[in-house]
Amino acid sequence: MSYNHRSHAFDLSVGTLESGPLNAITDVAGVHVGHKTRIEGDDTRTGVTAILPHTGHLYHDPVTAAVYTINGFGKAVGFEQVRELGILETPILLTNTLSTWRAADALVTYMLRQSPDIWTVNPVVGECNDSYLNDIKARVITPEDAFAALDSASDGPVTEGCVGAGTGTSCYGFKGGIGTSSRVVGEYTVGALLQTNFGSREELRMNGIPVGWHLRDQYKAGKAPGPGSVMIILATDAPLTARQLQRLAKRAAFGLGRTGTACHHGSGDFVIAFSTQRAQTIQLDHVIMDPLFSAVVDCVENAVYNALLAATTITGREGNTLYALPHDDVRRLLQLETSRRAD
Amino acid sequence: MSYNHRSHAFDLSVGTLESGPLNAITDVAGVHVGHKTRIEGDDTRTGVTAILPHTGHLYHDPVTAAVYTINGFGKAVGFEQVRELGILETPILLTNTLSTWRAADALVTYMLRQSPDIWTVNPVVGECNDSYLNDIKARVITPEDAFAALDSASDGPVTEGCVGAGTGTSCYGFKGGIGTSSRVVGEYTVGALLQTNFGSREELRMNGIPVGWHLRDQYKAGKAPGPGSVMIILATDAPLTARQLQRLAKRAAFGLGRTGTACHHGSGDFVIAFSTQRAQTIQLDHVIMDPLFSAVVDCVENAVYNALLAATTITGREGNTLYALPHDDVRRLLQLETSRRAD
Amino acid sequence: MSYNHRSHAFDLSVGTLESGPLNAITDVAGVHVGHKTRIEGDDTRTGVTAILPHTGHLYHDPVTAAVYTINGFGKAVGFEQVRELGILETPILLTNTLSTWRAADALVTYMLRQSPDIWTVNPVVGECNDSYLNDIKARVITPEDAFAALDSASDGPVTEGCVGAGTGTSCYGFKGGIGTSSRVVGEYTVGALLQTNFGSREELRMNGIPVGWHLRDQYKAGKAPGPGSVMIILATDAPLTARQLQRLAKRAAFGLGRTGTACHHGSGDFVIAFSTQRAQTIQLDHVIMDPLFSAVVDCVENAVYNALLAATTITGREGNTLYALPHDDVRRLLQLETSRRAD
Amino acid sequence: MSYNHRSHAFDLSVGTLESGPLNAITDVAGVHVGHKTRIEGDDTRTGVTAILPHTGHLYHDPVTAAVYTINGFGKAVGFEQVRELGILETPILLTNTLSTWRAADALVTYMLRQSPDIWTVNPVVGECNDSYLNDIKARVITPEDAFAALDSASDGPVTEGCVGAGTGTSCYGFKGGIGTSSRVVGEYTVGALLQTNFGSREELRMNGIPVGWHLRDQYKAGKAPGPGSVMIILATDAPLTARQLQRLAKRAAFGLGRTGTACHHGSGDFVIAFSTQRAQTIQLDHVIMDPLFSAVVDCVENAVYNALLAATTITGREGNTLYALPHDDVRRLLQLETSRRAD
Repeated sequence: MSYNHRSHAFDLSVGTLESGPLNAITDVAGVHVGHKTRIEGDDTRTGVTAILPHTGHLYHDPVTAAVYTINGFGKAVGFEQVRELGILETPILLTNTLSTWRAADALVTYMLRQSPDIWTVNPVVGECNDSYLNDIKARVITPEDAFAALDSASDGPVTEGCVGAGTGTSCYGFKGGIGTSSRVVGEYTVGALLQTNFGSREELRMNGIPVGWHLRDQYKAGKAPGPGSVMIILATDAPLTARQLQRLAKRAAFGLGRTGTACHHGSGDFVIAFSTQRAQTIQLDHVIMDPLFSAVVDCVENAVYNALLAATTITGREGNTLYALPHDDVRRLLQLETSRRAD
Repeated sequence: MSYNHRSHAFDLSVGTLESGPLNAITDVAGVHVGHKTRIEGDDTRTGVTAILPHTGHLYHDPVTAAVYTINGFGKAVGFEQVRELGILETPILLTNTLSTWRAADALVTYMLRQSPDIWTVNPVVGECNDSYLNDIKARVITPEDAFAALDSASDGPVTEGCVGAGTGTSCYGFKGGIGTSSRVVGEYTVGALLQTNFGSREELRMNGIPVGWHLRDQYKAGKAPGPGSVMIILATDAPLTARQLQRLAKRAAFGLGRTGTACHHGSGDFVIAFSTQRAQTIQLDHVIMDPLFSAVVDCVENAVYNALLAATTITGREGNTLYALPHDDVRRLLQLETSRRAD
Repeated sequence: MSYNHRSHAFDLSVGTLESGPLNAITDVAGVHVGHKTRIEGDDTRTGVTAILPHTGHLYHDPVTAAVYTINGFGKAVGFEQVRELGILETPILLTNTLSTWRAADALVTYMLRQSPDIWTVNPVVGECNDSYLNDIKARVITPEDAFAALDSASDGPVTEGCVGAGTGTSCYGFKGGIGTSSRVVGEYTVGALLQTNFGSREELRMNGIPVGWHLRDQYKAGKAPGPGSVMIILATDAPLTARQLQRLAKRAAFGLGRTGTACHHGSGDFVIAFSTQRAQTIQLDHVIMDPLFSAVVDCVENAVYNALLAATTITGREGNTLYALPHDDVRRLLQLETSRRAD
Repeated sequence: MSYNHRSHAFDLSVGTLESGPLNAITDVAGVHVGHKTRIEGDDTRTGVTAILPHTGHLYHDPVTAAVYTINGFGKAVGFEQVRELGILETPILLTNTLSTWRAADALVTYMLRQSPDIWTVNPVVGECNDSYLNDIKARVITPEDAFAALDSASDGPVTEGCVGAGTGTSCYGFKGGIGTSSRVVGEYTVGALLQTNFGSREELRMNGIPVGWHLRDQYKAGKAPGPGSVMIILATDAPLTARQLQRLAKRAAFGLGRTGTACHHGSGDFVIAFSTQRAQTIQLDHVIMDPLFSAVVDCVENAVYNALLAATTITGREGNTLYALPHDDVRRLLQLETSRRAD
């Protein structure tokens, strides 16, 4: 049983597959991630995260893609065309709920600059509601914020926690944010990046331990944040069709399930899966899918832990505070488990 | 067999149901429609059309709704949440493709003004690509244009043709635009409003007569417009559930089929159906659905004709011209038919 | 404008594409069709129709496939697995509603005989309710009937009308049955085979002429048959993915729409589309789909006419009679149209 | 944190909701469950399980229902019509894969006997592949077996493990079978019944403990069973619409996820959810759904454990053996956990 870095330091094991070198979505060759973080004054706690399947001209060289809606109480943009055509022709932006359409419009501007010959384009944007900490109605996100996230994207380690679109989000009543992870299956890599903003405190399980239940009355300030959402981006270099990518996307729910949530009514839980490799010949499902499915489930579970472990305590709008997951408590709650697993 | 006004003057019969007094979506009590038309200089030929299910606070008093995607090559906004929750919590805006997200953002502004207590909202926006006549990349649509369409909405007769979101659109290679129609079935009314921008010339059938094939070489200037799209809004006061409304929405394809199109690859063909009456007790499908289905099919066919008959010739970007459907030719092509039906 | 044989004799034109040599689904190379007709005593008027994508071992050499449900008030078997895997691993059987599962079981027997090494198989079966003429509750269809349809399948001309699964079915209040058609688009062929049992008399349009409305009070005996259904099988040798085949399948509604129906509540209207050519490299949608879409719409419209034109008057259960479409009336109603089109 | 009976004896806690008196689907008033078990000779290890939403005439008094396909590699029967109409008009039968259609046909016979006036009916049947222990190709299930399951149904405690449709099935490489559970949320009850046949040994987690990984090399005989399936039946007396029931059904994946599986390619994982109470007025989602979602997730997790804990070691076809989950090992693996949770 492998222990992946970051979560490793906390004795968190997630499945039996090895992660890639960075345990990040950028382990899938070509994928770039960038953040623009906006922490200003008392109540701006928000940002933009950009995921680029590759750094070329995506409109003219789109990647195969699929979407899946776990719970559709959210404002995700661009899904209809991905469903119909099975391709993604822009980078993906993540931001806060009420800035969704400005981010989409900025992405269109970005695409028209990159490819002045085009007359239409389908921007894909996801969102979570960070209004517990952020003055979401101010809609401070500008086109320049979107460009900054896109232009700063790199294929190296991905900053997690309170950055970009995760700056103001929660997770299981703690401070959440961006989390990422990867797994290697044979010649292929699967990566996940999550904008976490979901779950109630009591639900949280880590390695199956009901950590949230143990900590149900601590690390709280005032009323709990409302129901959130989670955006899940899956990348792989396995040459899959859109149908196969949708099968991958559906497995994200299994990874979330392992961390305890029942997926609330008010949650906008969406999955976008893409492959950086155009299928030249079609791989048969029974040959290729099962290990990829396991990789997805492990990545999603691991990315949730990584988001929680990386986030730091933040105070924002109206003095609302989301506490970081208390590392010492988590270590204590997990350690007996670890010793037992060593037997 | 009834002859509905407007199409009546052209001996166009569509089905056997009676239309409402206005033969318009505003025959459904409470529904309001407004347009903002932008015709400026050589190449601004675009606009916004607003459809309001009622004029109260939609966020706090949403209507039951469903969406259906006939062909998803389009940028419709807000569909995921309508699918999940079965409600529409904003007016619907229609505009041009590249202004979709600015219109959505303006709709959010409008909603936040109307209901300052809300922290999230799901704007629903549809679009067609009017770039044959309009400099779509200029993205001239402003928030004020959206507000103007919303604020000017009325429940009276609906202006059709080259107005609002139909200002620059085509239909079967002629000038298209906004078209509307209604049918009465017992105590209920069904209305449709279409933003037409679809079909190739040769496909057009009116009353089954291959009008487009007869006129395949005339009324053309330069290259044909590219594949378009059609946005179809259906309203009813029948108290239906979201599941039943989706069944209604699927019938729109049958109405389009009667007018000849095969529904092109590049078309973004979407249906949004809503009921102004919350279902208090659930009507059984076998009691209520069949006449409503017929009404939908007739409304959609009739609205296509109305859009074509109301539109006028327009010249726009780079001198491109879309000709109005030539009324005299159509009368000539249809008249033998009429005499025969009278036998 | 081409006139395809069979419908040609009635001056029925359907679109502008040429049909294949047989104007039948068997124009798609490899496809075989067989019927077993059961007309016995006063009230057995039913049968089985088999469509084989090829005559090899389908379980071990499946074809790419997709399904689409226009209106799901029907008992179609095997759809879930086709949706998930995008393949068809058995021939397709069509029969009457209450014999659906015995036909499916017989198809399993057939497959186990053909491939004794298999431990699971997904039979695909469609149905229409022929109880107006047939004592459907007697469930007379035997495994041998299914085998007879499968074993007699040929790649030649397809018998239409009152044969196989169409023996007892209606169409627009006339006697319906099996209809088939094909269209050639470049190097590819598209074929359709329909088990027609749908529509109310008043709805029928042929070439757009409201033939059913003209004949609304004639050729009737007693109460009308109830709402029916239509099973639509689409075949092509274009090398499409499952996603692309589903796009094809959705176009069937446009073809039905041209013939007048609004698709009734009580109708089980299903489409199964398959490709006999495994996609080696993936064809891009914008290159390949549009002419295939037109071919589907034309095939479906043409197959409805062919079913109606081939069927003969049949009396069955409790003396119920379904009249053949009266050829002379149809010729008369269509002739002015024909002369006009020749101008 | 409550400990529900059966799982209680093993210190298994599942969530924080109380179960109903029987911790079974029959805690939902009106629901009846019956089994017919076939254990004969060396290689008949199969059966039928019947779930009746109520014991009246379901065709004339159907219940609101929804279906959801987690992974569609399976042969579930009757789903299209449930999707379209949102109702269930027969009891549900579960059996082995290759007997699916005979069970469906027997269910039709049962319905025709109960309601001789009907001319069509939509039987709903689910299945798992028990061929590791059972000579599935013999298709021994008879109509009488189906009737026996239906006629023996009771609303008392539900026998779990190696009974009915669970007689020959596996679960995480151990002997699986039927498992059930319930949860009470306010005035409503949610119940689940599972036919478990899914998962690979290494995946199994109980209370988050990787029990399957610890036991990965023990309790095995020869080659592992192939990929399986799981049928999940959800019942509630909350008066929900079909749309709301589908939202419930989607939560089943979260419960399965907690037990470790990644949901294999070869698995036919289907959910059927019904409400015994017709919605008179429509409950708003935000008022009613969240506790019901939690109940579903807990029920499904608990039912998996109950199936594993109730099953006993069985040897069948070709001497293949599936071992019961070793209770002592499980107790040992879970006990440290228990002591820690008591702190």
